[in-house]
Amino acid sequence: MRHYLDHAATTPLRPEARDAWLEATETVGNASSTHGAGQDARRLLEESRERVAAVLDADPIEIVFTSGGTESINLALQGLWRSRPAGAEAIVMPDAEHHATMDTVAALAEEGAQVRAVGVTALAGIDMDAFARQLPGAALATALVANNEAGTVNDAAALASSSAIAGVPLHLDAVAALGHLPLSFRGLRGDAAPGVGLVALSLAGHKIGAPVGVGVLVTARTARMTAMLRGGAQQRGLRAGTQDVAGAAAFATALELAESEREVEAVRLSALRDRLVAGIRSAVPAAELLGDPVHRLPGNAHVLFPGAVGESLLFLLDVAGVAASTGSACQAGVAEPSHVVMAMGRSERDARSVLRFSLGRTSTDADVDAVLDAIADAYLRASGSGTGARS
Amino acid sequence: MRHYLDHAATTPLRPEARDAWLEATETVGNASSTHGAGQDARRLLEESRERVAAVLDADPIEIVFTSGGTESINLALQGLWRSRPAGAEAIVMPDAEHHATMDTVAALAEEGAQVRAVGVTALAGIDMDAFARQLPGAALATALVANNEAGTVNDAAALASSSAIAGVPLHLDAVAALGHLPLSFRGLRGDAAPGVGLVALSLAGHKIGAPVGVGVLVTARTARMTAMLRGGAQQRGLRAGTQDVAGAAAFATALELAESEREVEAVRLSALRDRLVAGIRSAVPAAELLGDPVHRLPGNAHVLFPGAVGESLLFLLDVAGVAASTGSACQAGVAEPSHVVMAMGRSERDARSVLRFSLGRTSTDADVDAVLDAIADAYLRASGSGTGARS
Repeated sequence: MRHYLDHAATTPLRPEARDAWLEATETVGNASSTHGAGQDARRLLEESRERVAAVLDADPIEIVFTSGGTESINLALQGLWRSRPAGAEAIVMPDAEHHATMDTVAALAEEGAQVRAVGVTALAGIDMDAFARQLPGAALATALVANNEAGTVNDAAALASSSAIAGVPLHLDAVAALGHLPLSFRGLRGDAAPGVGLVALSLAGHKIGAPVGVGVLVTARTARMTAMLRGGAQQRGLRAGTQDVAGAAAFATALELAESEREVEAVRLSALRDRLVAGIRSAVPAAELLGDPVHRLPGNAHVLFPGAVGESLLFLLDVAGVAASTGSACQAGVAEPSHVVMAMGRSERDARSVLRFSLGRTSTDADVDAVLDAIADAYLRASGSGTGARS
Repeated sequence: MRHYLDHAATTPLRPEARDAWLEATETVGNASSTHGAGQDARRLLEESRERVAAVLDADPIEIVFTSGGTESINLALQGLWRSRPAGAEAIVMPDAEHHATMDTVAALAEEGAQVRAVGVTALAGIDMDAFARQLPGAALATALVANNEAGTVNDAAALASSSAIAGVPLHLDAVAALGHLPLSFRGLRGDAAPGVGLVALSLAGHKIGAPVGVGVLVTARTARMTAMLRGGAQQRGLRAGTQDVAGAAAFATALELAESEREVEAVRLSALRDRLVAGIRSAVPAAELLGDPVHRLPGNAHVLFPGAVGESLLFLLDVAGVAASTGSACQAGVAEPSHVVMAMGRSERDARSVLRFSLGRTSTDADVDAVLDAIADAYLRASGSGTGARS
C-alpha cells in the first residue's frame, strides 16, 4: 500500500472538482463565441470567476485564469517588469523563493533587471526589515506567502503594506499557501495607491484538488501589467487564448471546498504533522525540524536528517511505500542541494540531507505510521556510506 | 434543438478523451517527483508524448505540451525571436494569419522586429513567391497550414522547403489543420539544416476533441528557442510548470482517434459541406463561397452574404437554433471586419458580411437542414436595413 506524503507537490483531484469539470465539458461552445452555445460557456466561466473572487475577497474582473502557478508567476513578474515605470530597474526578491520566481527573475536580469536580494532567517522567514530597505525605487517586488519547502509562513500583510508605503508593486506567490491560510486580496491590498502595494497573487489549482493545468493570477484593477500570451482580448487583454471553462469551474469548486474545510483541516493536519515530527525525532534522535515551528503550514514537516543523503532516504522510503520529497528541484535526474536550506544558513551537505513530508486532504494516521515504521532503518542505511541503498 | 456549426471555434470533447483524462487523474503524483507515484505519472506522460509523436511523425522529445494553441504560437514566435541569429531582425508573416500570430508579432515589433508582410490571393492562399522572396536574412517566418476562417489550405511542404533553402526557421500554425489534414513533422522538415526550415508546429487539443487547455508545440531538436515560461527543466527547459498528465493523455487519445477517422471523415464532411454550400446558394442566390474551392478544409464553408450584416445573420440563425461564426475576432462585444476577408482583396463592407460554418465529428444532415431552413429568411432580415433584427 502506498502512503502519499507529497501533497505539496500535487494533491489528488477532488471528486467534486472532477464532477464540475465533467459537467462543464457538456457545455459545448467557445466562451468567446457570440451564439447561444458560446454564451452558455461564457456564463459558466463568469460564474466560476465570481465564485473564485468571492473566496479570495477580490473583484471578479481581478481573477485572471491561467494554466497554473508557473504561468501565473511568470505573467506577474514578466508583466510587471515590462510595464515598469521609467527609471525603475530593480527587482526585490528574497533568497528562498520558488524556482518559477528565481528562474523568471534570472531571465529578466539578462534583460537588464538589477536583482536586490533579501535574506531569510534561520527559520526560512523573509527578513522583513531587509525587504523594506530594498524597496525604494524598485520596479517590483516578489515574495512567497508561505515557503513551499520549509513551510514557514511570512507576514503577507506586512509585505504588502511595506510595498504600498514604498510605492512599489508587489507580487505574492500564494501557491503553497492556498487552501491552508486565509487569503483576502482586498484586505492585503488595503488602501494602497493604484498600481502599488499588492497587485498580483499567484495560485495553482492542483495544490487544492483542482485539476493540473489551471491556475489564477489575481490582478488588481490598477496593476500596470503587460500580457505574456498574445492573441485576443480575453481576460482584460492580460491572457489570450480559448478560456478553459471546465478548468475554471473545477478550480472554483475545489477552492470553495478547500476554504470551507480550511480551519478544521488545519487543526487535523497540524496534529497529524506534530505526531509525525515527534515520532521521527523519537526514531531518529538526530533529526531536526527545520522552518518556523509556529508560523508554519499545517501539513508541512521539513526535516533535516544529519549525515544522510536525502535522495537515498527518499528511495528507501519509496521502497517502503512512502512518497515524500527532498523539496529541491531535480534537474535531469540529478538532485541539487536545496537553495532554501542553504538560504537558512545551513551547509550544502545539510541541504542534501532534508526531506519534506507534506500532508493533505487524504492523509491519515496510517500514513504517519508508515513513515514512523520505516524511518529509523532508512536513516541507518542512508547515512554514513553516502549512498546508503544497500539491500 | 441546437445545431452546432462552429466546430472550428471548439468541438465537443470526445468520450474516449474524457475517459483517458479521468483515468489519468486517478494517478496521483507530480511527474517531476522521483518517488513511485511520481514515476507512474511520468510514465503515463511519456507514453502520451510517444503516442502524439507517432501520429505526427516526430521524435517524442520534440513534443512539448502547452496550455493550448495560443501558448504554442506565442512560445514559437517569442522563443525563436529571442534566440534569433545576430543581425537578423525581420519576421516574415502573411496577411491572413490568426490573431495569436498577428498580436504576438505586433508585440515583437515593439521590441524592434521588422515585419515583412506577405500577401494572400483572392482565395486566401499565401502568395508563395512573395513568401520565398521575403525570406532571405529573416530571423524567422510563420504561416498557417490552413486558414482558420477561409478554410484555404496552403502548401506546407513548399513553405517548409523554401524556408529550409533560405536558411530561415519556420513556424507553422496547424491549429485549424489538425485532424483534417495529414501532418508529418519529419516529412515537412525534410533534410533541412539544423535550426532552419520547419522547426515548430503549433497544435491545440480542443479542436480535435481533447479538452480545452492542452496544446502541443512540436519543436525540432535543433530549434534555437528561448523559453517563455520559466521555473524548471521540464520539457527540455522549453516549458516550465507541473506537467498536465491527464491533459496529455486525453490529447493523445483524441489525436489518435482523429487520425484514424481522418480520411473517412474528410469525405463525409466534404459532402455535407458541399450540400450546405449548394443549399445556401440556392436559398440565397447572391451568396458566394469564399476561399479555395479545392484546397480547402473538409468541414469549412466560408460564405459571403452581400449586403447583409454578419452579426445580424449570426443572431438570427442563433434564434433559429443554429450556431455559426463570423470568423472574425469579437473584441469586447464589438465585431471587427474580418482581416482575412480584407486580405483577400474584399471591401470592409464585405468583411462584415461573412459567415463561417464549420462542421465536425458530431455534424449531421439535420444540422445542414437547419441552416437551409433558416438562411433565406435570415438573409432577408439581415440585409438592407443594416441591423436586420426585426421581429
